[in-house]
Amino acid sequence: MSYFEHIPAIRYEGPQSENALAFRHYDKTKRVLGKTLEEHLRIAVCYWHTFCWPGSDIFGQGTFHRPWHQPGDAMERAQMKADAAFEFFTKLGTPYYTFHDTDVAPEGTSLKHYRENFSRMVDYLEKKQQDTGVKLLWGTANLFSHPRYAAGAATNPNPEVFAYAATQVCHALDATQRLGGENYVLWGGREGYETPLNTDLAREREQLARFLNMVAEHKQKIGFKGMLLIEPKPQEPTKHQYDYDVATVHGFLTQYGLQNEFRLNIEANHATLAGHSFHHEIATAFALGVFGSVDANRGDPQNGWDTDQFPNSVEELTLAFYEILRHGGFTTGGMNFDAKVRRQSVDPEDLFYGHVGAIDNLALALERAAALVENDRLEQFKQQRYAGWDTEFGRKILSGGYTLATLSSDAAARGLNPQHASGQQERLENVVNRTIYGAR
Amino acid sequence: MSYFEHIPAIRYEGPQSENALAFRHYDKTKRVLGKTLEEHLRIAVCYWHTFCWPGSDIFGQGTFHRPWHQPGDAMERAQMKADAAFEFFTKLGTPYYTFHDTDVAPEGTSLKHYRENFSRMVDYLEKKQQDTGVKLLWGTANLFSHPRYAAGAATNPNPEVFAYAATQVCHALDATQRLGGENYVLWGGREGYETPLNTDLAREREQLARFLNMVAEHKQKIGFKGMLLIEPKPQEPTKHQYDYDVATVHGFLTQYGLQNEFRLNIEANHATLAGHSFHHEIATAFALGVFGSVDANRGDPQNGWDTDQFPNSVEELTLAFYEILRHGGFTTGGMNFDAKVRRQSVDPEDLFYGHVGAIDNLALALERAAALVENDRLEQFKQQRYAGWDTEFGRKILSGGYTLATLSSDAAARGLNPQHASGQQERLENVVNRTIYGAR
Amino acid sequence: MSYFEHIPAIRYEGPQSENALAFRHYDKTKRVLGKTLEEHLRIAVCYWHTFCWPGSDIFGQGTFHRPWHQPGDAMERAQMKADAAFEFFTKLGTPYYTFHDTDVAPEGTSLKHYRENFSRMVDYLEKKQQDTGVKLLWGTANLFSHPRYAAGAATNPNPEVFAYAATQVCHALDATQRLGGENYVLWGGREGYETPLNTDLAREREQLARFLNMVAEHKQKIGFKGMLLIEPKPQEPTKHQYDYDVATVHGFLTQYGLQNEFRLNIEANHATLAGHSFHHEIATAFALGVFGSVDANRGDPQNGWDTDQFPNSVEELTLAFYEILRHGGFTTGGMNFDAKVRRQSVDPEDLFYGHVGAIDNLALALERAAALVENDRLEQFKQQRYAGWDTEFGRKILSGGYTLATLSSDAAARGLNPQHASGQQERLENVVNRTIYGAR
Amino acid sequence: MSYFEHIPAIRYEGPQSENALAFRHYDKTKRVLGKTLEEHLRIAVCYWHTFCWPGSDIFGQGTFHRPWHQPGDAMERAQMKADAAFEFFTKLGTPYYTFHDTDVAPEGTSLKHYRENFSRMVDYLEKKQQDTGVKLLWGTANLFSHPRYAAGAATNPNPEVFAYAATQVCHALDATQRLGGENYVLWGGREGYETPLNTDLAREREQLARFLNMVAEHKQKIGFKGMLLIEPKPQEPTKHQYDYDVATVHGFLTQYGLQNEFRLNIEANHATLAGHSFHHEIATAFALGVFGSVDANRGDPQNGWDTDQFPNSVEELTLAFYEILRHGGFTTGGMNFDAKVRRQSVDPEDLFYGHVGAIDNLALALERAAALVENDRLEQFKQQRYAGWDTEFGRKILSGGYTLATLSSDAAARGLNPQHASGQQERLENVVNRTIYGAR
Repeated sequence: MSYFEHIPAIRYEGPQSENALAFRHYDKTKRVLGKTLEEHLRIAVCYWHTFCWPGSDIFGQGTFHRPWHQPGDAMERAQMKADAAFEFFTKLGTPYYTFHDTDVAPEGTSLKHYRENFSRMVDYLEKKQQDTGVKLLWGTANLFSHPRYAAGAATNPNPEVFAYAATQVCHALDATQRLGGENYVLWGGREGYETPLNTDLAREREQLARFLNMVAEHKQKIGFKGMLLIEPKPQEPTKHQYDYDVATVHGFLTQYGLQNEFRLNIEANHATLAGHSFHHEIATAFALGVFGSVDANRGDPQNGWDTDQFPNSVEELTLAFYEILRHGGFTTGGMNFDAKVRRQSVDPEDLFYGHVGAIDNLALALERAAALVENDRLEQFKQQRYAGWDTEFGRKILSGGYTLATLSSDAAARGLNPQHASGQQERLENVVNRTIYGAR
Repeated sequence: MSYFEHIPAIRYEGPQSENALAFRHYDKTKRVLGKTLEEHLRIAVCYWHTFCWPGSDIFGQGTFHRPWHQPGDAMERAQMKADAAFEFFTKLGTPYYTFHDTDVAPEGTSLKHYRENFSRMVDYLEKKQQDTGVKLLWGTANLFSHPRYAAGAATNPNPEVFAYAATQVCHALDATQRLGGENYVLWGGREGYETPLNTDLAREREQLARFLNMVAEHKQKIGFKGMLLIEPKPQEPTKHQYDYDVATVHGFLTQYGLQNEFRLNIEANHATLAGHSFHHEIATAFALGVFGSVDANRGDPQNGWDTDQFPNSVEELTLAFYEILRHGGFTTGGMNFDAKVRRQSVDPEDLFYGHVGAIDNLALALERAAALVENDRLEQFKQQRYAGWDTEFGRKILSGGYTLATLSSDAAARGLNPQHASGQQERLENVVNRTIYGAR
Repeated sequence: MSYFEHIPAIRYEGPQSENALAFRHYDKTKRVLGKTLEEHLRIAVCYWHTFCWPGSDIFGQGTFHRPWHQPGDAMERAQMKADAAFEFFTKLGTPYYTFHDTDVAPEGTSLKHYRENFSRMVDYLEKKQQDTGVKLLWGTANLFSHPRYAAGAATNPNPEVFAYAATQVCHALDATQRLGGENYVLWGGREGYETPLNTDLAREREQLARFLNMVAEHKQKIGFKGMLLIEPKPQEPTKHQYDYDVATVHGFLTQYGLQNEFRLNIEANHATLAGHSFHHEIATAFALGVFGSVDANRGDPQNGWDTDQFPNSVEELTLAFYEILRHGGFTTGGMNFDAKVRRQSVDPEDLFYGHVGAIDNLALALERAAALVENDRLEQFKQQRYAGWDTEFGRKILSGGYTLATLSSDAAARGLNPQHASGQQERLENVVNRTIYGAR
Repeated sequence: MSYFEHIPAIRYEGPQSENALAFRHYDKTKRVLGKTLEEHLRIAVCYWHTFCWPGSDIFGQGTFHRPWHQPGDAMERAQMKADAAFEFFTKLGTPYYTFHDTDVAPEGTSLKHYRENFSRMVDYLEKKQQDTGVKLLWGTANLFSHPRYAAGAATNPNPEVFAYAATQVCHALDATQRLGGENYVLWGGREGYETPLNTDLAREREQLARFLNMVAEHKQKIGFKGMLLIEPKPQEPTKHQYDYDVATVHGFLTQYGLQNEFRLNIEANHATLAGHSFHHEIATAFALGVFGSVDANRGDPQNGWDTDQFPNSVEELTLAFYEILRHGGFTTGGMNFDAKVRRQSVDPEDLFYGHVGAIDNLALALERAAALVENDRLEQFKQQRYAGWDTEFGRKILSGGYTLATLSSDAAARGLNPQHASGQQERLENVVNRTIYGAR
């Protein structure tokens, strides 16, 4: 049975194509900087956004009416959903998918049910992966939707909730390993607070650190080769989340000696909610040595909540890929579409429109970014701008050759009077735009 | 000569007073939790905001026309300004002041001038302090106004600018020590970037770490007993500042092993610009062990720049003091008015109105916070809420007694099904308001 | 049967009371400025927030598990909910309630069902009102939750949706009249757009104007004596809503000649989402002659979505009441608690804590505002500040006695050189705080 | 004498050019939709941003050190500035410029000086225009920088300030007419408030309306053929500005019967500060019939103040031009660069880089928008989406053929059950991106 019967497999037809259900830029076999677009982009479709969310929002009911959302036996519906999902992945032609444990299997009413259901569905997914060749970019556990997690999972005031969360992560990580997942993600959607009045920040940080330690040890124990990833987000559903942004998570990991165990999964919309550009968060993650993977989406620049729209700014994506490419590209990470069609986009076709357009945008951005990196005028400018730090004087400062007092005396003796040199921001912005919109 | 001739010394007259230039709540000798209000609050007036800023903004010229702003010999004007400042401190009756090096002495046109002018003015200030008994809460150096710092001070692409900044800090820290300053503050107003396109984040972080190391070593060398404080701010004048917020600065310090050398000077308006409540930043600083001092002001909740208004929400201040008091109060830190009267408030009286009202607000908030702490229902609720972590099960988890797998097995074996318990946010908010507005 | 069996009727016990379920400030019979607190405040409990919302958010399931949320016959559940609601109103002792049509009656699966269910429940509510004396502040229709309204109600691209919405409003307005409602509210939660790419702004504005016209005519026809109210909100669930803020709605009404037919229902949280203070929106509504009623709540100053928390800032509420009182107080409007307990506050007691604390805050704020108005130093300052406009020169300008050219000549001839006079913002802020925290 | 000696006239060299000081896309003679790019874009360089601002910000001194910023005779410096400006305009090859009265002439210390200086400089500018062929897009008066305007110009509490402002506008409008200006702009930078506590909103609105009336009458009297434009901005330097956004200004004009006298000058950065997309504000202005001209720049999406950066998002500009072109393009309006190079961009070349890149972006965007308009799939989708409103049923509703009651009865009788149809947002977003990044 087909859930997308009237929709053909999506193919690359080139920029001239008028076909709304074809790629115009994502020629997956095209080689750029020594790899194919498919190898560079490592695109994943996200189970929750595309197959679980019913089109509801905080003011309105679901609008989508997918067959697998209809009433019926929960496990049957879960299999229908998996069938639909793998049909979608296959027609779209993307190599990866991602899931939460409770996206793929009904949670049931007890830990026993959860384990049984999840185990059966992992078998089912394994077979689906074999049948289609679609791979798992990462798995994760949903530790935020059930009422038990209302006050957090690892940071819950009740240690039994911590234990429940540990159980889910244990199973989800084992399942991820079994399904060949290349990473495992932790998003602490409720690991924060609604009000400091009832929250012990110091305790909760300790709990979170313990939890992450246990996950890292379990990974070692089972020999999972993938990366552990933490996904920063500043707020929503909480008033405040501990994993606020890249720098905050890095600081937390460093404090607890975990900085070598985890890398970061950076989401565009979470970056902007935290008051940063997407570019900033990516660049910061590289500067701090914790870049891992990307949740590709966008927020609305005027709305203050997580809109999870499909990424459609090639300009913004080019800057993100510029950072990724000049640091060597993804290793185990990839571009996961943490993005949902708008609530009004109720047709199955809309799911394809959203992904097809976004994939073309990624392909365009990657190519533009590759052109930027190949003749890297930004880097050349930086080399020249910081050249003073490569002189003897600069190196002596950085290597501890001066105290504050000796540097001060030296400066005074030499009558230092340094002049500001132009940062040439406008010229560099032109370099970027000229690459994006340049001759081809 | 008097600059505030017609304004009397401000005295405590009690809540019934109709005198606009009297304290109604700040009875400095009143004892609360074993200390006087003066000892608790450790109020400082800020040189720059109150005596240097001419009432200009980005769209308009200065409106204030103070005598010491008029054209004339720079050193004479600096002494007039100091005279006015100390007359103000004395009439206001506050124990402390704070300054930037270039607030008190003309910068001149060379390092030589800078050193001479500053040195002469430090002599002058020393005498003023002796004459009045006013003390220095902290000193700092202005590393952001001069064009040489347009691209940063410690993080400048030019090491000569780093050296110039080091010279200023060396002198400012020495001066702070000589003047008996109880802390030294670093605010990195230009330590960030306008665009990542021309900025090497990794390099600049190394430079900043080196700079901070040199400052910490110099402090040890000269035997300065005060605290070194870093002041977080997310942005403005930069697009992005490295010292974004409390957690980010703590992470930076931890990464470079500096977490024991520095504490934080937390500004209310900077907290809100970073997307946090003032309460959050104070509570986080305590949770991370880096609380130092406070820049007391407020931002406009609807405007996105640093408005530095006088703090006028007793409700907000009470929560800040609640955290401060339950952690034992200030040690070397204090409440510095990093606040300026509005550009339209051009009269000398307005300077007094701003400070008098704000000081009363601090006094009110401190008293309410003391009442909260004395019978701490918030803390009692937390004790009970987290009680599970003090059981054997909770302690075993936290002390590493479980692996992810053993905890998962244990949870499954016991058929754990934890239920969420109410967080009682509304009741706790009522506890706070009932204390603020309660029977007296 | 009782739904809040263990909770006593809430009584006024005075500021000394330690009872968490008593009023400490809301003595409903206390007289202020010639009216009782009950008459001034005209408090309403909101059906949806307190009895319909299950404690879900966009990342999590409902947490509340109220008896009337359990599976069962829809009409029976609706009656249980009404029983619980009126028990709550009665125990709380507040005079009013408010509802959406679909809050009180199951929507059913057809217009026929809707009409029948709603009609039966209106009978039920009528009886409840008679039994308890609780009155209806306003009714409204839910034109945003059902999928048919995904693209708007009056502004829907499909006129049949417009017709469906008209049907609901016709019934809801008739029901409001029948139940003695004192106002009727329209909130256009989906009257906006997700993207301008698929939206005809000009068409949709015409549709909305037609709809409002029809409502105003219907009101006249049926002789409804209450006020029609529009509730501004800038966004959420939409990307952009036409009724952005007070000034925008006023402009729309003026353009279509509807400014005398509608007044505004101003919500605190919607004000701040639109970039305005609550005070601003109230003051603007009075300046434009369109003030009607208030949705009393608050948003989180750091979060960008509608948090609908209980109002807990007496400082903020005092400024709102200051505007309301100096313009004569509410006429048909009132204070509706468009507020919900936090998702973590799952106990029935929490519903009471939320309302009790907020009611005390309203009472406190009203009293402080009354004190401000009684000896209105703010108004006195304004009189003096604008006095020039009451001189012959000022009046001549305003009455059209000058052209630009004659005024310019006159100014030049007189060599005008006006000086800025202090706006005394800090002194006036002190006046407010000294009233809020003053001697009692 | 040349101020930009080493900089050649900027020429179109095509997309392949490697010349940083050449246009790659702005071929001013290229024809699109029947007009040349030059005729479509009507680009203006802004005197203030490019020649007056010294590179200062609220935390730092000017960095630019232009020759005409040096100390000296004010009128000589004004002429040097004009010489530099017209050399710049000519080398850039743009057809228009814009100015404030006090940008071009020293304000002096009295109205007399102001009039004399301005009059002499208008003579000078007239000659410059004749010599170069550069034209004036619009003139305006600076009613916000001088301390006299600290509390507003037309909305000042002092009618003498109103008179002073009227004098400036009278002269600036006369000068604009004499110099052949095609529009006259009013930006009310101080027409708002710092606090409602000292502000009479109702009075100030009346004053503003009177002022605008006088300006409109003066325009008629002197026979100025250009358009009068109001520039909305929500805040900064004020806490709140009356001309908040397009809808608010339209509402104000409508209330006072001025809607036919004024059109709007829409600035991208002001749009985003008001919580709207640039696209929204342009589309709204057309829907309300008040579109006039554009201040082309951009804000920083993460910073909350007016950064006035050069527009560099072709994606954003394309949507703006799409609206402009489908409504017939500019009439008297144009694209004014209300944009400044960053404070760090201190070299004269940076002024050119900023403009050259931005002009290319405008050219690119105009061409992409023209392609969107030529085969307007967005419009086609809308036609089909709203088709129901063109049926008899739809038309009958809109023309008043139903009352609420008859429409309700009709809906019930027909058992209406309208279904939501997809809004296809993702497909339409793809249409836009496929045009921007399509085959060429």
